[in-house]
Formats: sequence, C-alpha cells, structure tokens
Amino acid sequence: MRSIAKQFVLAGVVAVATTLGAVSQAAEDPAALIEYRKAIMSAIDRHIVAIVMVVKGDVSFTDEVAGHAHAINEMSKTLPRLFPKGSGKEAGETRALPVIWERWDEFEAKIKTLQTESAKLAEVAKDGDRAAIAKQTMALGNEGCGSCHKTFREKKN
Amino acid sequence: MRSIAKQFVLAGVVAVATTLGAVSQAAEDPAALIEYRKAIMSAIDRHIVAIVMVVKGDVSFTDEVAGHAHAINEMSKTLPRLFPKGSGKEAGETRALPVIWERWDEFEAKIKTLQTESAKLAEVAKDGDRAAIAKQTMALGNEGCGSCHKTFREKKN
Repeated sequence: MRSIAKQFVLAGVVAVATTLGAVSQAAEDPAALIEYRKAIMSAIDRHIVAIVMVVKGDVSFTDEVAGHAHAINEMSKTLPRLFPKGSGKEAGETRALPVIWERWDEFEAKIKTLQTESAKLAEVAKDGDRAAIAKQTMALGNEGCGSCHKTFREKKN
Repeated sequence: MRSIAKQFVLAGVVAVATTLGAVSQAAEDPAALIEYRKAIMSAIDRHIVAIVMVVKGDVSFTDEVAGHAHAINEMSKTLPRLFPKGSGKEAGETRALPVIWERWDEFEAKIKTLQTESAKLAEVAKDGDRAAIAKQTMALGNEGCGSCHKTFREKKN
C-alpha cells in the first residue's frame, strides 16, 4: 500500500495531470487496477474496523456507523468493474483467485450481497440502536465480507 | 491496526453486545479511542490514495472521486472529538503530538480546513473534469492533510 506521504511527493505528476484534461478511457492497466482495488478493499476494511469497535462498545460513536456503512456501500458498487479478466496474479500482487473468473456469476452475486447488507446497515444505523447495529454488522461481516473471501480470496500464509 | 479477520473472530463479543442495549455514554477509554482514531485516519488515507490514482491517470474512475471525497468529509466532521485531552502518547501508541492540546484552536482550524477542502472536492468531482479534480485534490492534500500533519503529527523515524 502506498502511503499518503509518497503520493504527495508525486505532486509534480499531479501538476502535470492538471494540464492534461480528460484521461483516456482505454481499458485499465491491470497492475494499476490491482493497486486501486487494494486501496478500495483496505478502505472498506478500515470502515468495518471502526464499526466493529462501536458494536463492541470500545467507543460510543453509534452516530458514525451510518456514515461508515454508506461509504462501504458506495465502494461496493464499483467492485464488479474492479475485477476484469486478467487482473489476477498474472498482473500483480493480489490475493484474488482465478475462481473469480471461473465462477463469475457467483462472485457477482456475493458483491450484490455486500451491496444489500451494507445498505441495510446504513439504514438500520440511523436509529442509533447498538443492538440492531450489532446484528446487522454481523450479517454484513459474515454474508457480505467473509462468505466471499472464503471462496474467492487466497488465504494468508 | 486490527485485521477484519481478527474482528470477526470476536463474534462472541458482538453477540453479547446485542443483548446489552445502549452503550454507556461515559467518557471514552483513551486507548480504545486512539485505535478508533487510527482506523478513521487510515480510512481517510486509503480514500486519498484512490483519489490520487485517478488524478494521476493510473485508473480512469473519475466518477468515483466524489464518493471518496464525501467519505473523507464525513469522517473529518468527527475529528475534533477524537482528540480529547489525555489521548496522546500517555494513553497509547500514537503520533499525535502534545502541541495539539497546547494550540488547540489552531489544530481545530486545520480540521475545519480539511472539512472545507474535502467538501469542495466532493462538489468539484461531480463534473468529472480530471483537471479540476487534480487542482482541488492538491488543495485537499496540502492544506487539509499536509499542513496539519506538519505541525501536529510526529514524523516517522
């Protein structure tokens, strides 16, 4: 994962980009796509970590859960296009398994579940009821995250 | 940073929480608050990384920038309460410097800048103009992130 500091060291590159106008809409570079995908997945993870800390009562910020769930939901919508064919290990360092493209319909259904469960959490959390938030967080974690990772993501060594 | 896997191993704890009802609104535990704060800061970082990849043209997803900027803006609103007195090094592993509490008004003003610049980016990004996005991303990165970290966050060794 690139650090924010490194990103902003690249200020020169950004300055150049301001003069370029619209970026080419050609197919994405698979290696860059993998890096972007990791940033998205990691952002989702951080939002979940924050939610779980509220659920466990480590912190009392129930009023922030809806915002985190909304962010997860927004990012879940882009996931299908972040997994084009050719963006597996052949293109970069990733735990995305080939079975994703062998069983695409099943994979896409898992993403749909993530979208549904995160939307539900964003809705449930509006009431600030920690018990209800906890229940729906479990659904999101198990059905939306774990169920997909179990089959489609490589285990860590 | 706790991993999502570890979090969900704690399913038992979550199950208990569902029976507890509302969490106590007592002052936050400083050590837990630091962990939560790191999750928030790290989430902001990941959203910025994603935005900068779009700005640099690594990926073409200009239509996702507004969502990332919105998420950053939402999290920026909670930052003042995530830095209560007593949540520095005396309470846990953190790069938050004592100068935060010595010059609180200045620190709070920096957070306000983050709020303003991230809101502007969320607005600018709606048009999908990468040059405009790049310009506002620089403003966000320099004024909203870098300017505060320079004074109030410990340098990495």
